[in-house]
Amino acid sequence: MSDELFERHRGLLDLAIAATATRGAFSAYPDRIADFNEVVQAEGREAFENYCGSYFYLDQPGVGERVGSEQSPYRIELGIQYPKTNLNSIMPASVRAREGWSKVDVDTRTGMCMEILHQLHLRSFEIGYATMHTTGQPFGMAFQSGGPHAQERGLEAVAVAYQEMKSIPVEALWEKGEGSATVRLKKTFRLVGRGVGLVVGCSTFPNWNAYPGIFANLMTGNAVIVKPHANAILPLAITVGVARHFLKEAGFDPNLIMLVVDELEKPMAQALAARPEVKLIDYTGGTEFVDWLRDNARDKLVYVEGSAVNPVVIDSTANFAGMLRNLVLSASMFAGRMCTSPRVVFTPREGIATPAGTTTTTEFDEHLAQAFERMWNDVPRSCEFLGMMRPFEYDARIDGAAALGDVVVESKTLEHPNFPGAMVRTPLFVRVRADQTDVYMHEWFGPIVFLVECDTTAESLTRAAMVAREKGAITAMLHSTDAGTCSTAEETFGATGTTLCLNFTGPVYMNQSAAFSDFHVSGLNPAGNGTLVDSAFVAQRFRVLETKSMA
Amino acid sequence: MSDELFERHRGLLDLAIAATATRGAFSAYPDRIADFNEVVQAEGREAFENYCGSYFYLDQPGVGERVGSEQSPYRIELGIQYPKTNLNSIMPASVRAREGWSKVDVDTRTGMCMEILHQLHLRSFEIGYATMHTTGQPFGMAFQSGGPHAQERGLEAVAVAYQEMKSIPVEALWEKGEGSATVRLKKTFRLVGRGVGLVVGCSTFPNWNAYPGIFANLMTGNAVIVKPHANAILPLAITVGVARHFLKEAGFDPNLIMLVVDELEKPMAQALAARPEVKLIDYTGGTEFVDWLRDNARDKLVYVEGSAVNPVVIDSTANFAGMLRNLVLSASMFAGRMCTSPRVVFTPREGIATPAGTTTTTEFDEHLAQAFERMWNDVPRSCEFLGMMRPFEYDARIDGAAALGDVVVESKTLEHPNFPGAMVRTPLFVRVRADQTDVYMHEWFGPIVFLVECDTTAESLTRAAMVAREKGAITAMLHSTDAGTCSTAEETFGATGTTLCLNFTGPVYMNQSAAFSDFHVSGLNPAGNGTLVDSAFVAQRFRVLETKSMA
Repeated sequence: MSDELFERHRGLLDLAIAATATRGAFSAYPDRIADFNEVVQAEGREAFENYCGSYFYLDQPGVGERVGSEQSPYRIELGIQYPKTNLNSIMPASVRAREGWSKVDVDTRTGMCMEILHQLHLRSFEIGYATMHTTGQPFGMAFQSGGPHAQERGLEAVAVAYQEMKSIPVEALWEKGEGSATVRLKKTFRLVGRGVGLVVGCSTFPNWNAYPGIFANLMTGNAVIVKPHANAILPLAITVGVARHFLKEAGFDPNLIMLVVDELEKPMAQALAARPEVKLIDYTGGTEFVDWLRDNARDKLVYVEGSAVNPVVIDSTANFAGMLRNLVLSASMFAGRMCTSPRVVFTPREGIATPAGTTTTTEFDEHLAQAFERMWNDVPRSCEFLGMMRPFEYDARIDGAAALGDVVVESKTLEHPNFPGAMVRTPLFVRVRADQTDVYMHEWFGPIVFLVECDTTAESLTRAAMVAREKGAITAMLHSTDAGTCSTAEETFGATGTTLCLNFTGPVYMNQSAAFSDFHVSGLNPAGNGTLVDSAFVAQRFRVLETKSMA
Repeated sequence: MSDELFERHRGLLDLAIAATATRGAFSAYPDRIADFNEVVQAEGREAFENYCGSYFYLDQPGVGERVGSEQSPYRIELGIQYPKTNLNSIMPASVRAREGWSKVDVDTRTGMCMEILHQLHLRSFEIGYATMHTTGQPFGMAFQSGGPHAQERGLEAVAVAYQEMKSIPVEALWEKGEGSATVRLKKTFRLVGRGVGLVVGCSTFPNWNAYPGIFANLMTGNAVIVKPHANAILPLAITVGVARHFLKEAGFDPNLIMLVVDELEKPMAQALAARPEVKLIDYTGGTEFVDWLRDNARDKLVYVEGSAVNPVVIDSTANFAGMLRNLVLSASMFAGRMCTSPRVVFTPREGIATPAGTTTTTEFDEHLAQAFERMWNDVPRSCEFLGMMRPFEYDARIDGAAALGDVVVESKTLEHPNFPGAMVRTPLFVRVRADQTDVYMHEWFGPIVFLVECDTTAESLTRAAMVAREKGAITAMLHSTDAGTCSTAEETFGATGTTLCLNFTGPVYMNQSAAFSDFHVSGLNPAGNGTLVDSAFVAQRFRVLETKSMA
């Protein structure tokens, strides 16, 4: 059964491995809705609807009470209940499952992980709806980010881990002359995981951010406990359910992966992270828990992605309209709730050089406001960019930010045409002074962007780099027609470990990160310490055990 | 020049890469004294003698006062003075050197690192004497451990780092259809180090333990500051001097690698580790500083090798004489001052089954004492195993251990026939009760071994595993003729991350660890968190910087 799984998925594995070497575009799983027939789409929707108002079945040990209070930003009634978990029951089960799994060879682990990803792919619509109704993402984004694109990040982890582990032989013969005699040792090498890996999910991209850790852990022989954010449980619950089902079917202990659901008022991440069985932690979310982990999980392997204040520097452009459109859509995408959303825009006092002459700061602000105004005229299309929010989720923060400077683009409230009562706040743009560093050197997670005028583009780059270095940034944008400025920016952002996007004026955004091609998070600034997915992300998760005997 | 260096060393690099894949015996640099002609040997000795009573010249910035008080355990007068370093001068120089080095391509870095290793190899005799007279190692061991074997650990780091970095392309073209249009992005990837890497040397194997960190750091684009143990400066001072010379010759900033010499009474490791420029730390030595690093260097990448209590479990043997000889020589090798020396020997109450019948505990103790007695009869040969010690260095610890149980093998004092006044203490074997865990679950670094009788071999394995898991172990030995016991031991020690040696009765010892073949330190128990040299040891030392532009 296990060999058969590996052989079945070997072709895709080979392609995935090749893609990690070339880092061009590689689409392992179809990601366009049109690629799926209507029956599959309808089944996915139906499966999602069946979860609503129901108890999510999970055959884990130690299941007792029920828990769960997810609220759909689309204002449909979810009412999904999950098993509440007793850590004292699941921890020994997790440790036991890992013991068995650590004896399974790499090919078999790989076949199993790829089968799970394949099965998840078949459930992409169900997962898409689950992602949409827990995170508030528009369906198109939810389908991709929760489905194929998350699966590709998972597959990328599988491919990188496979290569790392296969580079170590199963056995070796060591021979050396000692005086007149030859000494021969037979050496065997076993690759084992470190223990239980805790993967703490985030509320915005639960699957996309969790799959790398989950599959890197499974590949390298660790057990996994998934603790979703209390607002976004369902996508990861489906994931764990699918994985458990197919592990069991293939004859493995399904407790290799388990779900722990907590409540917003009774968070369990700290208690889980502190358990001695937990040796690895993957976390995406707020800085507070990142800091807690650094101070309290010192003897564990911890990969975190925290907050990011992604800067945009505008110097000059050959395509003002394209630049403006790109910025507007980039800021609108999921209403600023991406770890790669732009958060602060720097422009030079002398204005932005364009083919039609110089655009002053005042003119730029007017163009920006008008572009958004035009965009909001088409509410249905806007909602497909913005997604929805839970009531009042961002109101206080938006109002707080608006009070700190001059509002250039107001944050509006849009209501979804098809989901009664569902609303979203559109991005606010506030102009602040360059010396208000306490304002813009801070992640205002949500639809909030600060505009900052600097004396020169050189100052813009200096300030943008300071933001990235001190507060963290994953991605940055520079618009400039000057080759020297581009190359200076490459050095400047390079020194802060921020991915630099140059002059994006078409339908590609600084927000986007593609598996197999983009290295997501450099580890060189406070935005995080792990890269999706490089070998450093997987190589520390397993260890080599050696036995030597005289041969 | 740089391309030329890479081409010059490419053949050896290819062999080294192949060796990391097969992990058989690979000798990159000749390691037998007879491989070198007499002129080379004489020149090495002369070079060493020229250091004695002199000022060690190093063209580093911020050099002022002189420092250094190494004492040769062979009682020859060293009197070597080193430049004392002002951290406020060298830190900016280190940062600046790294900035330049981070722009150098991987092939060029590789050529340079291999040229440095090659030049160090040519100085192996000089380094051998330096190692002998600072650590007290016998010359044969000092030559190998400070010379070719350290160089091979360095080359191993080069080969592993090379492969990791070359797996990432320099650029990629990313293409994807977006509606009717095709979006094309050109992506470039730059590999950069994290910053300044501090390598803190140990007093026993200064080069062997430092080279992996030094060369892994240089390869991955980091600067290096080497802080040797105040008792064993010269081997690393020569290393840094050679590296600086050839960096300069090839047109690079020699401040890429610098030496900081401190004094026993005024240690500088903490001050160095706390510097914000230092982003990576490699340390081998006592548990105290390991703990300090865990608590105080939380935001740095830290690889440590701390204390190890390596257990021997004797159940039964097909070759009692060979087993005994192996244990005697293993305990005598450098008089128990190896991180892989045996520290506690467990035997079963019912005795050890041998082809000649059962050997009781009493008989075993007698055989052991007699074997040592015979060995010490040949003082010159014994000294070639034991090396020498500084006066009184281990006396208090040996006396303390002797008082805790029944002395089975007394620790003698041997004087070296050729070095007047030089002495060494031979290994003490003390029998303690199995319940004296506070005694034997502790690293008594030096010539001290505890003997523990257990009810059964099963109990021996349980206790040995407990020692390894809780106090750390790098290597363990099992003697058993029973396949089931061997396989149980493989599981038991595997679960504690200890390399298991099975039935060594010939001229190969649990103490030995071969570059390109053995994974040294598993990272799964308190003996350390980094493995020499696996990809996890190098992959985290560099990061990927990405730039994307519309193509």
